[in-house]
Amino acid sequence: MIEANIIGFSTSAEGVSYTQGFNPSTGEALDGNFHRATPNEVNRAVDQAGIAYNIYGKVSGKEKAVFLNAIADEIENLGDELIERCCTESGLPKVRIQGERARTTGQLRMFATLVAEGSWLEAVIDTSQPDRAPVPKPDIRRMLVPIGPVVVFAASNFPLAFSTAGGDTASALAGGNPVIIKAHGAHPGTSALVGSAIVKAAQNTGMPDGVFSLLHGSGKVVGQGLINHPGVKAAGFTGSQTAGRILYDIAKQRPEPIPFFAEMGSVNPVILFPSALNSNTVQMLTDSITMGAGQFCTNPGLLLSIKGVNLDQFIIELGESLSQVSPGVMLTEKILKTYNSDAATATSNKEVTVETIVQSENKSNRGGAILVSVSGESFINNPDLAIEIFGPYSMVVKCEDKNQLIEVISNLDGQLTGSVLGTPDESINFSKVIDRLEKKVGRLIFNGVPTGVEVCSSMQHGGPYPAATDVRFSSVGTMSIKRFVRPVAYQSWPDNQLPDELKDDNPLKIWRLVNSELTKI
Amino acid sequence: MIEANIIGFSTSAEGVSYTQGFNPSTGEALDGNFHRATPNEVNRAVDQAGIAYNIYGKVSGKEKAVFLNAIADEIENLGDELIERCCTESGLPKVRIQGERARTTGQLRMFATLVAEGSWLEAVIDTSQPDRAPVPKPDIRRMLVPIGPVVVFAASNFPLAFSTAGGDTASALAGGNPVIIKAHGAHPGTSALVGSAIVKAAQNTGMPDGVFSLLHGSGKVVGQGLINHPGVKAAGFTGSQTAGRILYDIAKQRPEPIPFFAEMGSVNPVILFPSALNSNTVQMLTDSITMGAGQFCTNPGLLLSIKGVNLDQFIIELGESLSQVSPGVMLTEKILKTYNSDAATATSNKEVTVETIVQSENKSNRGGAILVSVSGESFINNPDLAIEIFGPYSMVVKCEDKNQLIEVISNLDGQLTGSVLGTPDESINFSKVIDRLEKKVGRLIFNGVPTGVEVCSSMQHGGPYPAATDVRFSSVGTMSIKRFVRPVAYQSWPDNQLPDELKDDNPLKIWRLVNSELTKI
Repeated sequence: MIEANIIGFSTSAEGVSYTQGFNPSTGEALDGNFHRATPNEVNRAVDQAGIAYNIYGKVSGKEKAVFLNAIADEIENLGDELIERCCTESGLPKVRIQGERARTTGQLRMFATLVAEGSWLEAVIDTSQPDRAPVPKPDIRRMLVPIGPVVVFAASNFPLAFSTAGGDTASALAGGNPVIIKAHGAHPGTSALVGSAIVKAAQNTGMPDGVFSLLHGSGKVVGQGLINHPGVKAAGFTGSQTAGRILYDIAKQRPEPIPFFAEMGSVNPVILFPSALNSNTVQMLTDSITMGAGQFCTNPGLLLSIKGVNLDQFIIELGESLSQVSPGVMLTEKILKTYNSDAATATSNKEVTVETIVQSENKSNRGGAILVSVSGESFINNPDLAIEIFGPYSMVVKCEDKNQLIEVISNLDGQLTGSVLGTPDESINFSKVIDRLEKKVGRLIFNGVPTGVEVCSSMQHGGPYPAATDVRFSSVGTMSIKRFVRPVAYQSWPDNQLPDELKDDNPLKIWRLVNSELTKI
Repeated sequence: MIEANIIGFSTSAEGVSYTQGFNPSTGEALDGNFHRATPNEVNRAVDQAGIAYNIYGKVSGKEKAVFLNAIADEIENLGDELIERCCTESGLPKVRIQGERARTTGQLRMFATLVAEGSWLEAVIDTSQPDRAPVPKPDIRRMLVPIGPVVVFAASNFPLAFSTAGGDTASALAGGNPVIIKAHGAHPGTSALVGSAIVKAAQNTGMPDGVFSLLHGSGKVVGQGLINHPGVKAAGFTGSQTAGRILYDIAKQRPEPIPFFAEMGSVNPVILFPSALNSNTVQMLTDSITMGAGQFCTNPGLLLSIKGVNLDQFIIELGESLSQVSPGVMLTEKILKTYNSDAATATSNKEVTVETIVQSENKSNRGGAILVSVSGESFINNPDLAIEIFGPYSMVVKCEDKNQLIEVISNLDGQLTGSVLGTPDESINFSKVIDRLEKKVGRLIFNGVPTGVEVCSSMQHGGPYPAATDVRFSSVGTMSIKRFVRPVAYQSWPDNQLPDELKDDNPLKIWRLVNSELTKI
């Protein structure tokens, strides 16, 4: 395991302070003293990425696909060592981490397929009209090109799928950009293992030195240092609203502001229509609230319904069901501590009724589910109740009627998802509720729970602020590549000097918009 | 002519201070006392836009097309009154304003065609796989939806094509968003006339009250007031870097940051290869530098070449050619004053050689062309020389050799365009120069000048900062609509409640990506 920082194809261990991994369920320190990067190492990583960009930015889609597939292979080649380290560092169970590894390699291969095919580049061609009056029309051709070195902040809650070789990295590399990882302090060993796999893949597939770097260290020196560096051209982040906003502000206040896509979680409102107050919903929500110890950005933290005896009975049943679930180990001691104190603050409100608190015996860093309820009026009057509590916590809001339900939704901040449970007829009856919900979310779900984010072209994982910092992009699925590319137009350019994607005879046989017609010819 | 502010279908004249139009060539005040909007009117315009958004955001593409076409018709119906007012207020000649009107109505009709057809919405469908292991795959469908009320800042230098019914307005309306115009103080009468045409079109085609508003007034009260309003969800701006950055910072520092696309001009480097130092190039550059009195964001302010006797001779010929052009009237007194003082500052540098200053007899607010030269070394050592001087000013940089040319380009900020003039063989010989140039620009031009921005799907009008605040978007062409829309995914949604664009049987017959295949079926 590499304990140094990875700068391109070299390692560097200038720093004399260290990050260690911990087993959250025992508090025990794990092998490895990972050198925190110095400002000099931050600069070197960016400089090397800039050099690599000049080469990697011109690598063909097919060659990038070979590289991305090789990363997936090398991650699999890490075998049980990766799974064990990752489980120990994160406290997440083996089956979850195996699934996450599959998602990670699946994402890499999905992007490989995308860039090998090439139509994603939005090639557009308008041919010349030399005889047009009053002025001739020039030949103009446009496509997407890489934006430049991208910084990726690894996430605590997805040590594989949203970290070193996760979705942000895969989409940035697929787009033709070198990547610099700010490793997450909660899983430095996992980061080092995956980082070494990426370097191996880069070397074996002839990619340039600097296409990938990985730095351990603090948010201040490494994270802010990277975002302040003029050589960095974009960044992806998954984490808390507080940390995300600090970095976003830095990115936007630079002399040259850069795209900074932060996915900062949400409470993911779930609207329960009358017919949905049944045992099937109880089971779905129990699974969704407690999955991964509630540590998903799509965790359903807010359940909205119209008050009544059926809802009261439903709350009792959901509480009983949550009580049956053995509390899961949380990712870090700090996360459990914050969970408990945030929940204590919320439940200390006299308007909030505690329905269920699942005790976790206060050992092994486990976080028990908490279910609370509040009236619609109290929820509307106290904006603090709408703030996300990271963990297996959910709040039922008992609305007076449909109008109050609409008012509750109108008061919500932007969300990753909004779910409605009920019949199609009910959703017509509640269409104004759904209209309002749509304005607040990136993804609408019918008769399903928000957890379980499918990785595909149609996925939208993002949403109005603060779910994400830019509502126009997604951080999951093939479309996430659009965060890290920019269009360039070539006017009257010699055909033999155009990128292959834009040449007259379409040598790559990709879909292109030619004189307003979509064609592969 | 409406002298009040336009708030939806009503007028409002709360303010007791006024904006007037002026004839820049005579200094004479024109008819009309346009009420500067009050903070209360700013709020009312945004509130009305929010109400309209709930309706207009659901209007079909075909209905939006009728509206956009009606705006174009109503602008034409204004006839000579519009042309005359616009010429008088801007100092621009009639043939230019007639051309600009044609561009304005052409843009509106282009967007009408785009949204009537509908494929621009990027509909993506991944159908369900209920039997997939380990978990079933849900049905997910995604498309672009409007972002919400958009503020458009009118530009001084395009009183029609980038103002009240200009490109930003057309793209925002086409995307399904209500628009609020911050009228430009240099052409309030033109704004009022075009604003009344839009209101008429909205009323005649059944669009909601509030789909369009127009406010006169200061950048501070109206401009900043609008950008600070939580009901505003995006903005488009064309103008100076100073004003653009102030507004950008406000947009990004809001509690809920919003997309703010500012196009802030550039010096548009033109690289002259040895073979291009000829009389044909002299004529092209003369036309381009003096077109519209040099008041285009694509004005060629920087000419880069390798030093030598041919370049010296070329500079003499270009200077003589520029001297033959009668200076044009500049848009406002202030713009001429700034042009003269900026040029005086630049030419006071002892490294700068004045090649030609065309005298304008200091009357009729005319700005004469100025051509200066400087060595590559001096240019590199003095970053101030790279700053745009708005007007018919251009600087030749005499580089020692190819390496210094690359260094000069490397030191440039982001640019809207980069042009190369020469033969295809030369451009292979100078490929490293072009590689470097490509990283700095949104559009590359071969053997052409940067002025003359074609309005089409392949156009990229934007570029790395400060050419634009977000390099990923264009402010000209059909793709500019992407600034003002966001994706929404619908998971397991009942077919009959999906937007038509996503329904199973594709009733609109648009192109969609269905299970990774592009199809109209």
